[in-house]
Amino acid sequence: MNGAQSLVATLVNCGVEVCFANPGTSELHFVAALDSVPGIRPVLCLFEGVATGAADGYGRVAGRPAATLLHLGPGLANGLANLHNARRAATPIVNIVGDHATYHLRYDSPLTTDIVSLARPVSSWLCTSKSAKTLAGDAARAVRAAREAPGGVATLIMPADAAWDSADQSAQPLPEIPMGQVSSASIDDAAARLGRVTKAALLLRGCALHGAGIEAAGRIQEKTGVRLLCDTFAARTELGAGTVFVERIPYFPEQIVEFLQGLQLIVLVGAQPPVSFFAYPGTASRWVPENCECYYLARAHQDGVAALEALAHTVHAPAHAKRRTPLQLPGLPSGALNAMSACQIMAELTPDNAIIADDAVTARFPLLKAFAQARPHTHLSLTGGAIGQGLPVAVGAAIAAPNRKIVCAHGDGAAAYTLQALWSMAREQLNVTTIIFANRTYAILNIELQRLQAGSLGPKALSMLDLGNPELRWVEIAQGFGVHAQRATTCAELIEQYSSAMKSEQPKLIEVVL
Amino acid sequence: MNGAQSLVATLVNCGVEVCFANPGTSELHFVAALDSVPGIRPVLCLFEGVATGAADGYGRVAGRPAATLLHLGPGLANGLANLHNARRAATPIVNIVGDHATYHLRYDSPLTTDIVSLARPVSSWLCTSKSAKTLAGDAARAVRAAREAPGGVATLIMPADAAWDSADQSAQPLPEIPMGQVSSASIDDAAARLGRVTKAALLLRGCALHGAGIEAAGRIQEKTGVRLLCDTFAARTELGAGTVFVERIPYFPEQIVEFLQGLQLIVLVGAQPPVSFFAYPGTASRWVPENCECYYLARAHQDGVAALEALAHTVHAPAHAKRRTPLQLPGLPSGALNAMSACQIMAELTPDNAIIADDAVTARFPLLKAFAQARPHTHLSLTGGAIGQGLPVAVGAAIAAPNRKIVCAHGDGAAAYTLQALWSMAREQLNVTTIIFANRTYAILNIELQRLQAGSLGPKALSMLDLGNPELRWVEIAQGFGVHAQRATTCAELIEQYSSAMKSEQPKLIEVVL
Repeated sequence: MNGAQSLVATLVNCGVEVCFANPGTSELHFVAALDSVPGIRPVLCLFEGVATGAADGYGRVAGRPAATLLHLGPGLANGLANLHNARRAATPIVNIVGDHATYHLRYDSPLTTDIVSLARPVSSWLCTSKSAKTLAGDAARAVRAAREAPGGVATLIMPADAAWDSADQSAQPLPEIPMGQVSSASIDDAAARLGRVTKAALLLRGCALHGAGIEAAGRIQEKTGVRLLCDTFAARTELGAGTVFVERIPYFPEQIVEFLQGLQLIVLVGAQPPVSFFAYPGTASRWVPENCECYYLARAHQDGVAALEALAHTVHAPAHAKRRTPLQLPGLPSGALNAMSACQIMAELTPDNAIIADDAVTARFPLLKAFAQARPHTHLSLTGGAIGQGLPVAVGAAIAAPNRKIVCAHGDGAAAYTLQALWSMAREQLNVTTIIFANRTYAILNIELQRLQAGSLGPKALSMLDLGNPELRWVEIAQGFGVHAQRATTCAELIEQYSSAMKSEQPKLIEVVL
Repeated sequence: MNGAQSLVATLVNCGVEVCFANPGTSELHFVAALDSVPGIRPVLCLFEGVATGAADGYGRVAGRPAATLLHLGPGLANGLANLHNARRAATPIVNIVGDHATYHLRYDSPLTTDIVSLARPVSSWLCTSKSAKTLAGDAARAVRAAREAPGGVATLIMPADAAWDSADQSAQPLPEIPMGQVSSASIDDAAARLGRVTKAALLLRGCALHGAGIEAAGRIQEKTGVRLLCDTFAARTELGAGTVFVERIPYFPEQIVEFLQGLQLIVLVGAQPPVSFFAYPGTASRWVPENCECYYLARAHQDGVAALEALAHTVHAPAHAKRRTPLQLPGLPSGALNAMSACQIMAELTPDNAIIADDAVTARFPLLKAFAQARPHTHLSLTGGAIGQGLPVAVGAAIAAPNRKIVCAHGDGAAAYTLQALWSMAREQLNVTTIIFANRTYAILNIELQRLQAGSLGPKALSMLDLGNPELRWVEIAQGFGVHAQRATTCAELIEQYSSAMKSEQPKLIEVVL
C-alpha cells in the first residue's frame, strides 16, 4: 500500500464518497488509487474553480464533505475563489492539494510556490503531510476538521513522495469534535431579554435555518412574536410552501436600515450582527439600529439547534409552529420577457423539492420574490461574493441529490467565470437546468456606480460594464461543452423550453435574453 | 482629484499604457478615472486569469508593465495562476487589487479575505496603500518595483476609500533602480574558466536571450565553441531564420542527462542550474553532470547583457556572430493530420516576425521542431507550468504588438482553463490565430503516468485523463465568444484554413482534430 492508497482508503473509511478532481502529474498516484481502493466517485472538472465550487454545493446539500484534488499551488489558486465562498458558507470540504516531492521543493522548479500562504485565508485547518506514513492519519484529521462545527475547508497538502512511498495502513475515522453547548444560563438570559422587549428578532445562520432548528425558531416566533431573520446570502435556506418563513436581510444599506428599524433586540444564533456588503462614501458599515442590543445566543461553533430548542422550551412555546408559507404560485405571465416574468415562469413550473443554485446577481431579487411562495425548495446563495459559483454548486448539488431537480439561476457575467462546469454536467449527465439571465452587462455595477458617487462616466468606464460587444452566445457555448441549449426571447418560448427541461433529467441550458 | 484619479495619472506618468481589468464595486472609482485621466487603454476581461495572463504577454513583448485591475481577494485569487507564470517569466506587471474601505474591513463582510497572504507568493513587491494621499506615491513605487531587474509582479492593494477620498496630485516616475553590474574580476574569472575546459555552455535567461545579449553570446560561441543553452520554458526566445541558435534544455530527466553529458562548465547568466520539472520515484531533481561546475556570471538582478558583452571582449570574440539559423521551411505535408504535420503547416505558412504564444503541452515538442528553422519569430513559453496561459498571453501580446501576427498554439485541456480570453480577442479585434490541438485527453498525464510507476490503471483513473466524454467542440465555443472558428480534420483543410487566417487580421480559431 502506498501513501495515496492509504489516503483514499482513509477518506472512504471516514465517509467521503466523492472527489471533485483536476489532477496533474503530482497527483497521479492518488488518481491510480481510485481504482485500487473502491468507494470514491471521482468527478473530473476542467477547471479547479469548478471542482471547489462543486465540493461546496455537495457539502451544503449532503451535509458531509466531498474531497477535492488540486494540482499544486496554481491548481489551488484557481480553486480559491470558490473555496472563499465555501468558507463563508461554512461548508465541510476536504481540500487535497498535491505538491512536489519534499526533496524536490528546494530546487524551486517552475511549479513550486508557497501553497500554505495561498491556502491559509480559506482554510479552517491546514496541514502539509510529512510522509507516506503520516498521510492516512492526517486525512482522518482533515475529515474531522472539515466536519467540526460549523464546518470548514480542511486543506491537506500531499507531497508527491508521500503519495508514492510505502504506507502502513489506512486510518479509521476520529471521534467527531463535539459541538459547543450553550449553557442553560444563556438560554435563560435570552428568554429574559426576549421577555423585556416588544420588538425582537432571531438572526439564524447555518443549521439553525434547517430542520429542527428552523422548527424550534418557528415555535419561539409563535409564542413570542419574534421576527425570524437570515443573512442576505444565507448558505442554504428551505423555502416555499409549508416552510417556516424567514425574512432575508436586504442587500443595500438603506434597505437594511428600514428592515431593522424599531428592533430592540437581535438574538444571534450562529450569526454576526448585520453589516453592509460594501462600504460607500460617507456611509456606515454596521447597520444595527441604535439602542438595539445584539445578544449572542450561540456562536458558530456551538449547537444553535439545541439552543433554539431549549429556548423554545424555556419560553413555553407550543409544540409545533403553525405559521407556514402558503402555496401561492405566481401564474404564468404573458407579457414581455424580463427578469421578473422569467422568474415567475420558473417558480410556476419548478417541481417540488428542487434545489436552486443562485448566482443570479441582479436577477436574484425577482428570483427570491417569485419563488417565495412556490413549491418547497432548497435555495443555495452565493455566500462570499465571488461570482462564478452557481454552475459549480449546481454540479455538486446534483451529485449529492441525484433524485432532485437542480435549477441553476445565473447572471451572464457571473456565469463566464466557471462555465467549464457545463462540461461536467454533460459528462455526468446531471439533472441540472441552467438559466442564464442574459442582460449583456455587469448590471450590479451599474447600480453600484450610482451609489458610489463616482462621478459621470465616459465611454471607457462604461465599456468596462458592458458585455454586449460581442454578445456571449450561451447556446453555442453550452453546446460546445456538450449541454443541450436553447434561447428564449419571449415568455411563450421560455414557458415551453422550461417546461420541457423540468420533465427531462438531462442537463440543459436556457439563455433568457433580457 | 480623488485617489483613483491620482493613481491612474501616476500610472500614465510612469509609462503604463494598458490596464487589463475585471473590476467590481470597490474598483469603480478607478474605472471612472479612466475617462477623466486620459492615457490608459482599458481592456475588459471576463475572468481575472485572462487579465493577469494578458498582462504577462504584454509585458514580455513590450518590455514594460501593463496594469491589472482585480476585485478584492477572490478576483486576485482567480488571477494568481497566471501571475505565478508571470513571476517565473520575470515579467513586469503592476498588479492592482481593490479592497474594501479600510474602516469596513473590521466587519468581515462576505468578500473580505486576507489579500496579502494570497498575493505574497507571486509578488516581488507588495503594498497596501494607506489612504488617498499615499496612493500616487505607492503607484510610482509599484511601477519602479515591477521594472526592477529582472522584472516582477508589483502588487498594489487599493482600499476603496483610498480610491474615493481626496488626493493631492499624481506622482512622477521614480528613478529606476539600476541593475547590478558584474565586476570585471568575475568576467575575467569566467573567461579563465572557459579557457580551462573544452566542453562548456552558457545558460541564458531573460534579457540575455534577446538583442545585444544573444548577439554577444553568439560572438563568445564563435570564439570559444561554447554551447548556448536556454531553459526548457524560457519566457521569450527569438527563434527561426537569422537568429543565433540556442539549444533548449529538454523536459524529461533522462533527456536532460543526455543533453548535458560531458559538460565541464555551465556559465549561468541570469539562470539557475538545470533541474527537472517534476520529481519521479527514485530519481534525482538536479541534473548537472558530476564534475561539471556551475559558475554564476550574472544573477537575475544583474546586467547579464553587459556581462556577456564584457566577456566577449575579454575572450577576444569577433565583432559579429556568423553562425545563424538557416531558413529551412518544412514544406507542406500531405499525409495524415497529426501534431507534427499540423505544426509543419503552421511553420510553413506563418509570416515573418510572428509571435507564438505556446501553451501546446505535448504538441509543444513538434511545434518547436517544426518552427526551428522557420521565418524569424518570437516564442513565448508557459513558464510556470500553470496551464491556461496561452490564450491570455496571446491577448496581451497582440495589444503590445498590433502590427505582428500572433499565433496561439494550445492544448485542448489547457485551453479550457482560460477560454474567456477568446471574448477579449473578439472584442478588441486582435490579430490572433488560435490553434487548438484537440487530442481529447490530458496527453501529458498519460506520459507522466508511465514514468511515475503508479501501477496499472483502472477505468476510474483513466477517466481522469479523458477529455473525450463529451468532446469539447471548440468551434461552437469560439463562436459563442464571438471568434470565427473552423475545424480541420485533414492536412488540406488545415492548410486552407491556416492560410486564410494568416492573410486576415481578425481573430480566428482552428480546432485541429488529432
